[in-house]
Amino acid sequence: MKNIKVIAFDADDTLWVNEPYFRLAEKQFYELMADYLPKNSPPSALFQAQIKNLPLYGYGIKSFILSMIEAGIAITDKTIPLTAIIEMLNIGKEMLEAPLELIDGIAEVLEALQGKYRLVMATKGDLLDQERKLEKSGLANYFHHIEIMSEKKRPNYKKLIQHLDIPPNEFLMIGNSLKSDVLPVLELGGHAFHVPFHTTWEYERVETTIVEERFRSLENVGEILDFL
Amino acid sequence: MKNIKVIAFDADDTLWVNEPYFRLAEKQFYELMADYLPKNSPPSALFQAQIKNLPLYGYGIKSFILSMIEAGIAITDKTIPLTAIIEMLNIGKEMLEAPLELIDGIAEVLEALQGKYRLVMATKGDLLDQERKLEKSGLANYFHHIEIMSEKKRPNYKKLIQHLDIPPNEFLMIGNSLKSDVLPVLELGGHAFHVPFHTTWEYERVETTIVEERFRSLENVGEILDFL
Repeated sequence: MKNIKVIAFDADDTLWVNEPYFRLAEKQFYELMADYLPKNSPPSALFQAQIKNLPLYGYGIKSFILSMIEAGIAITDKTIPLTAIIEMLNIGKEMLEAPLELIDGIAEVLEALQGKYRLVMATKGDLLDQERKLEKSGLANYFHHIEIMSEKKRPNYKKLIQHLDIPPNEFLMIGNSLKSDVLPVLELGGHAFHVPFHTTWEYERVETTIVEERFRSLENVGEILDFL
Repeated sequence: MKNIKVIAFDADDTLWVNEPYFRLAEKQFYELMADYLPKNSPPSALFQAQIKNLPLYGYGIKSFILSMIEAGIAITDKTIPLTAIIEMLNIGKEMLEAPLELIDGIAEVLEALQGKYRLVMATKGDLLDQERKLEKSGLANYFHHIEIMSEKKRPNYKKLIQHLDIPPNEFLMIGNSLKSDVLPVLELGGHAFHVPFHTTWEYERVETTIVEERFRSLENVGEILDFL
């Protein structure tokens, strides 16, 4: 870990709480749809709409609102009441206006690393929404560079590392998703720390065991400093 | 104009055709709403919803779809038929999948400038949608850097120019909007060329006469080379 020059942090569920807001919205969605679904049916229609729309809409709350409406239309076989659609628009606006809650201990970690490494925020999602969250977080000044990507796959990280003008083995990515934050970076020859969050979106889950000296699995953000 | 090192191009309606797709979608929207509006009433409800939602949703097609649905609900006093909402979702998807049409002569201009200047694309809007259009355009290789901004105001340009590591008077912005491409850059001490497009969104229109030696008003992109 001695050669690390740049540390990139994922944002959602690494710097601040995100996934629980989506889980709450999903719950509200299925409550609105309760009359149209068999009891105890698996809640998959919304997830399926999201995944189908991902290539066209991308990530973020606006895409989620549009997928809620689309899934609602499908679940009700085009009999969804307008009040439910209005409620979905409101759920989306509430998500966009939700308060920002920092992950415990993250400000202290950034404070300790500042000056010793070039710190970067590297996240996917909606441009305006991520900028707004960064501003609300009060963490903006810790970061030398903000990268908001449409995807967090290998080519996106390759571009980022080139842009930072460093070889991959001077790059460390820290995040809560093995799929988006860890695997593509390790594949490129970079370092990665996985700091799991208690809630992970189904789409981000992967079953894998990583044995690699450029990888660390941590319990919480406080442990980051033990390895740097 | 001798000291210019970096030339930034706006994308929508500067590199490729954009606004006519929004005008067509607006027309389709008002056709769907024809039964609910007095004949010859000014088409303003959709525009008002867009402007109201701008701080929360930002620019781009997904925001436009959500504003169509919201305006439709308001215009019909909550009696909008579901078929109209489904049609609005389809209009949005068609916009996202629309073919890309380059502005006449732009590829030749970029070809001529390449190597002599550092070329940048600087646009606002939706991250994924702009990346998709850039890829469809075949112009990506001309650009040294792509900047997709949530707003094109003075602080956003200030950050971009700092990031490019040049003084403002080595920066030239070329675009079709006086409000978003020209005025904020001139205020910062940069250069700006205005290349009007035949259709301009109401929100981007400003009435102003600019007398400034760092400014040029051109008839079309072909004239760019006359001044460089």
